Amino acid sequence: MNERETEDLAPTLEELRQRLVDFAAARRWEPFHTPKNLAAALTVEAGELLEIFQWLTPEQASAVMADPDRAHRVRDEVADVLAYLLQFCTAVGVDPLPALAAKIERNELRFPVPGAPAAGDGGVNPEGVS
Amino acid sequence: MNERETEDLAPTLEELRQRLVDFAAARRWEPFHTPKNLAAALTVEAGELLEIFQWLTPEQASAVMADPDRAHRVRDEVADVLAYLLQFCTAVGVDPLPALAAKIERNELRFPVPGAPAAGDGGVNPEGVS
Amino acid sequence: MNERETEDLAPTLEELRQRLVDFAAARRWEPFHTPKNLAAALTVEAGELLEIFQWLTPEQASAVMADPDRAHRVRDEVADVLAYLLQFCTAVGVDPLPALAAKIERNELRFPVPGAPAAGDGGVNPEGVS
Amino acid sequence: MNERETEDLAPTLEELRQRLVDFAAARRWEPFHTPKNLAAALTVEAGELLEIFQWLTPEQASAVMADPDRAHRVRDEVADVLAYLLQFCTAVGVDPLPALAAKIERNELRFPVPGAPAAGDGGVNPEGVS
Repeated sequence: MNERETEDLAPTLEELRQRLVDFAAARRWEPFHTPKNLAAALTVEAGELLEIFQWLTPEQASAVMADPDRAHRVRDEVADVLAYLLQFCTAVGVDPLPALAAKIERNELRFPVPGAPAAGDGGVNPEGVS
Repeated sequence: MNERETEDLAPTLEELRQRLVDFAAARRWEPFHTPKNLAAALTVEAGELLEIFQWLTPEQASAVMADPDRAHRVRDEVADVLAYLLQFCTAVGVDPLPALAAKIERNELRFPVPGAPAAGDGGVNPEGVS
Repeated sequence: MNERETEDLAPTLEELRQRLVDFAAARRWEPFHTPKNLAAALTVEAGELLEIFQWLTPEQASAVMADPDRAHRVRDEVADVLAYLLQFCTAVGVDPLPALAAKIERNELRFPVPGAPAAGDGGVNPEGVS
Repeated sequence: MNERETEDLAPTLEELRQRLVDFAAARRWEPFHTPKNLAAALTVEAGELLEIFQWLTPEQASAVMADPDRAHRVRDEVADVLAYLLQFCTAVGVDPLPALAAKIERNELRFPVPGAPAAGDGGVNPEGVS
């Protein structure tokens, strides 16, 4: 199977979002899935992803996927963050892909390439002000 | 334009991930984009999304998109969370879509439908143990 | 023993801060205790405290201490958050008590009592803008 | 003024906790101060503290207090985290000082000094499993 066919078989974000809707409905979990609860759960899971890195040096953190146990935890927490983000989007009726496309466009105006500070300019990424 | 054509025009997750790669490269921000920094930034942005809801009652939270200012903030923070999640995935070499598909499959085994506690069974969503 | 004597026996914040310094030194953990790592750990632990509440209704959340297991988790996570906050303060040389006293004074000017919105005024606590 | 007198003038944690109770009561903010809302606000503020450090190298992060603007932000966010932690403790009826003393005692048993991994043993602080 070539790469193109593999990509055709991979689920899309929308397909996964719908599977999560069906998953919650089958278990009657919708009453828990309020926007506020899902925003809290998203933050908790992002914290669990960060926990993997909290005591690592930058060098150890960059090699995190070389350790099979940590690599599994990273993939698992990425999945949890994405799951709650999609469930949050379902709960509030936001389509995350156009939301991100619009944000990138705003950031292209906000951080024009020529004037953008380089990495060595003092260590504050302009994103830091967002 | 019919719905099908609209979908064809919407960016895919992979296209947005690549745009973020190009955006960071053009501004020479890659040195900042370590896995540890991006996991921290993801958590910070998730907190900013939660901040919108922190003092709202469940009823107010459910109506959050009826307020244009809050609706804009919600879309903006969803975009930020997704952006940092995609940049994190780039930094560690994880494809988020198969990671989530695999997690849903594990959860289907872990939380079988017949025995799933209903919403009224005591208020603890089994996800709470994850 | 009267209440006054009990209070005299309770540790002060400064005594606990010093015990945490000694605890880390005895285990040679100081190299991990950078300001950045401790700020990350503090956020992670705050997320673990929030996790206890994420699926609870406001009513269930208000009765959280009636459940012995949850009450133990709450006390444990409060301790973890306070521990990392004190260790962070040690790492950056900030005394948290005067820092909080100064903040309360600024907030007394910022949110004067007569004009403060009441709870029924629309659901946004002015703290939300902080 | 000698050090002893300065310490006598500094507020205690309990005095600041009571000032926060009075502050919220005067502004009729108690309805917002549920355990769940305060746990969310605590996490949000911890994230704001982390935000200061997210793009900094370990070296830059360690020098954070040399920059007056960043030093002010650090003190301000420390105060916010401590304020919400104390308000949370008020809402659930937990005294944070004995809670932390008990946790330190448990950790002294859990991480005995002789067997504690040193900093160079592989980079995972045993706290990471907590």
